[in-house]
Amino acid sequence: MTALHTDLYEVRMAASYLRRGMTELATFSLFARKLPRDRGFLVAAGLADCLDFLRRFRFGDAELAYLGQAVGLPDSDLAALAELRFDGDVWAVPEGRVVFAGEPLLEVTAPLPQAQLVETALLNYVTFQSAVATKAARCRIAAPDADLVDFAARRTHGLESARAMARVSAMVGFAGTSNVAAAREFDIPALGTMAHSYVQAFATEYESFFAFGTDFPGAAVFLVDTYDTERGVRTAIEAAAELGLAQERVGVRLDSGDLAELAVLARRLLDEAGMPKARIVGSGGLDEYALAELTTAGAPIDTYGVGTKIGVSADAPSLDSAYKLVEYAGRPVLKLSPGKATNPGAKQVFRGGRGEQDVLALREEEPPGGTEPLLLPVLRAGMPRPGVDSLDAARRRFDRELAWLPEAARRLRAPETVPVTRSAALRELTDRLTADHTTARPGR
Amino acid sequence: MTALHTDLYEVRMAASYLRRGMTELATFSLFARKLPRDRGFLVAAGLADCLDFLRRFRFGDAELAYLGQAVGLPDSDLAALAELRFDGDVWAVPEGRVVFAGEPLLEVTAPLPQAQLVETALLNYVTFQSAVATKAARCRIAAPDADLVDFAARRTHGLESARAMARVSAMVGFAGTSNVAAAREFDIPALGTMAHSYVQAFATEYESFFAFGTDFPGAAVFLVDTYDTERGVRTAIEAAAELGLAQERVGVRLDSGDLAELAVLARRLLDEAGMPKARIVGSGGLDEYALAELTTAGAPIDTYGVGTKIGVSADAPSLDSAYKLVEYAGRPVLKLSPGKATNPGAKQVFRGGRGEQDVLALREEEPPGGTEPLLLPVLRAGMPRPGVDSLDAARRRFDRELAWLPEAARRLRAPETVPVTRSAALRELTDRLTADHTTARPGR
Repeated sequence: MTALHTDLYEVRMAASYLRRGMTELATFSLFARKLPRDRGFLVAAGLADCLDFLRRFRFGDAELAYLGQAVGLPDSDLAALAELRFDGDVWAVPEGRVVFAGEPLLEVTAPLPQAQLVETALLNYVTFQSAVATKAARCRIAAPDADLVDFAARRTHGLESARAMARVSAMVGFAGTSNVAAAREFDIPALGTMAHSYVQAFATEYESFFAFGTDFPGAAVFLVDTYDTERGVRTAIEAAAELGLAQERVGVRLDSGDLAELAVLARRLLDEAGMPKARIVGSGGLDEYALAELTTAGAPIDTYGVGTKIGVSADAPSLDSAYKLVEYAGRPVLKLSPGKATNPGAKQVFRGGRGEQDVLALREEEPPGGTEPLLLPVLRAGMPRPGVDSLDAARRRFDRELAWLPEAARRLRAPETVPVTRSAALRELTDRLTADHTTARPGR
Repeated sequence: MTALHTDLYEVRMAASYLRRGMTELATFSLFARKLPRDRGFLVAAGLADCLDFLRRFRFGDAELAYLGQAVGLPDSDLAALAELRFDGDVWAVPEGRVVFAGEPLLEVTAPLPQAQLVETALLNYVTFQSAVATKAARCRIAAPDADLVDFAARRTHGLESARAMARVSAMVGFAGTSNVAAAREFDIPALGTMAHSYVQAFATEYESFFAFGTDFPGAAVFLVDTYDTERGVRTAIEAAAELGLAQERVGVRLDSGDLAELAVLARRLLDEAGMPKARIVGSGGLDEYALAELTTAGAPIDTYGVGTKIGVSADAPSLDSAYKLVEYAGRPVLKLSPGKATNPGAKQVFRGGRGEQDVLALREEEPPGGTEPLLLPVLRAGMPRPGVDSLDAARRRFDRELAWLPEAARRLRAPETVPVTRSAALRELTDRLTADHTTARPGR
């Protein structure tokens, strides 16, 4: 009963198609028209939720009643909509792979009404999850030797979004998440420290640290900036000593001020106290740009908690994505809207070695030698390929992509993306259809 | 069974509090530290979801088992967590009201473990929904005479976020939403037109318009930019004439190119065809800045579909919000972290007339003459005040706020916010506690 999660126009169009028997196979292509500023690549994500949505796709009785009463669809439309299930095919770039502008992340081939109705949900999942996965991947690039932890749950756009954030951050190599529900669902390490409120709830900072170390001697990370950071670090050292905590189980978290400077201070104090293995955690408004500065400055921070800015992909909270009809009833189609023209036909992307261009081609073309196809069949006649939603597999895939990705595309500022060229066959088809439309007056 | 939607540190702290019998009443205050750039006000939103979350707050058996196995909490902690329900009080600014930096949107008073555990969800809902409600409100200010429709569902961060977007946009005066599931749930008009794919699925644009007008003669809005906008408008006029459609039921949608210029062209063609009542819909990457330009240019556009940029609040996708302990066991508390210092004590905001400053005060203070308190008790001992989640009431509230809001705070660029002063009592309390902490070495 997920089908009502769609835009009204999808329902209207689907009803119209059904009335007219326009149920031949349609292919829609989902892609990013261009990359956001300061993005040299995108990490494909969202497929698992798309497949789950498609599996559950149907209109419930109460939903159909609503479409009758409030939208005014006649019973004959409702009867036809009631029968709909998703029994088409999906080709997609597996999660964790890297893509560039114009490359399909996903293509749906299904009877036209089905393929149309699922647009809203598929676009939503792929756009948003690829945006935040990309942002998180950039953090990993910015701080390659630190452990990163997803702290975003409190500022994502809803709790469902927090769940996805935890999953995709694990996919790009984060060490864990603070989000307990997501940690449980996806078998990700749940990590966390203490909040300022804990310190404040005790009469003194020392009492709070002593209590926390008593209760969690195996993971005693003390938040030291509630009143004064230097004094907080000293207090943490005193409490750890008093409790006889193993130094490798102790840490301090810095959450405000100049993290690079405070980390040097904290490291020195911990080392002087004979705790060289005690860890330093940094947090507070971090993103890939801040991480890169801290890395460059050599800040002795072992673990970063990264929250709000990845959770909303702050500098690029959306992608210029599209879900466009490229073929219907065996006939490739395009649109010519200014700035939004599309390439016709079901597609494939062929990827060669590092430093080579990607080739955007028609799906049936033979792969050029030495290339591999990016899009794989992930759902056939409504049945998903087993394991296609595996987080572990996606994580391994992203690790390989990170090794492959050219340096220029990895850059955080003003990156150069990997060029995508169109195959000769795709160019010819596009030119032919464009000419047809601009000379043949398809308006009439 | 919503309680696991929290950060791990909340669970650890709650367990520690429970072990120590630290279950006296705590008050946490949820507020925005500062407004994002180019924001002169915030629209309070998210309260309905907060109250729903609190009502359903509990740990399920499987969740507790996870906390035992994966997080390592002993059975005694799990037994204590299993008993938790939210039975505290909440004071909040009702949805649809306008607030400024530093003013609490919500305050929770409950036994410390409960009040701590709900932080993540409450912060999430209020932060995100207030951010997008504010963005949508700015669109209404930018295009006061047009109908606005929420088209964001395809690019919000998940479908749960799309649902909230539809609701809060209705709250700030949008005429409807394209999101069918949300339209049904919240009794908002479901609105929509057709997509490019519909046009492309037919052999010609004319055939597609004729089919759509045949199927939906009561709401025939034709998307005219698939191939060529001028030709598309002419084709729409031809199809409408051929079908004998009532002109007030006909419209054209412009989704690319220079909307102001194309709208003038479309208006002229429609008027020349004897269809002065046919409507023009504009869409495509719009936000309050684009709407203001179109309004200033006098673009003859009757309805705007506003999507991605409001759905993610593109230029301010999050708020610098905080959920801070301000009182525990009858003792007001503060933190002094650089840039993140807090005001102690349970609060109230007193608002006077237009052009007057708001006063941030302690909750028990008497309202200064001619002011009204912004925070109301919305949940008492776990029971919500009836009707506090009403969308209609929130909509009426926002209409009043819009009339009250000073011109300078409404400005889209470089607005001047309404100043918030602290009451004498709050200033004295803050100064006293700050002095205590900076002289008494609370570290030890």
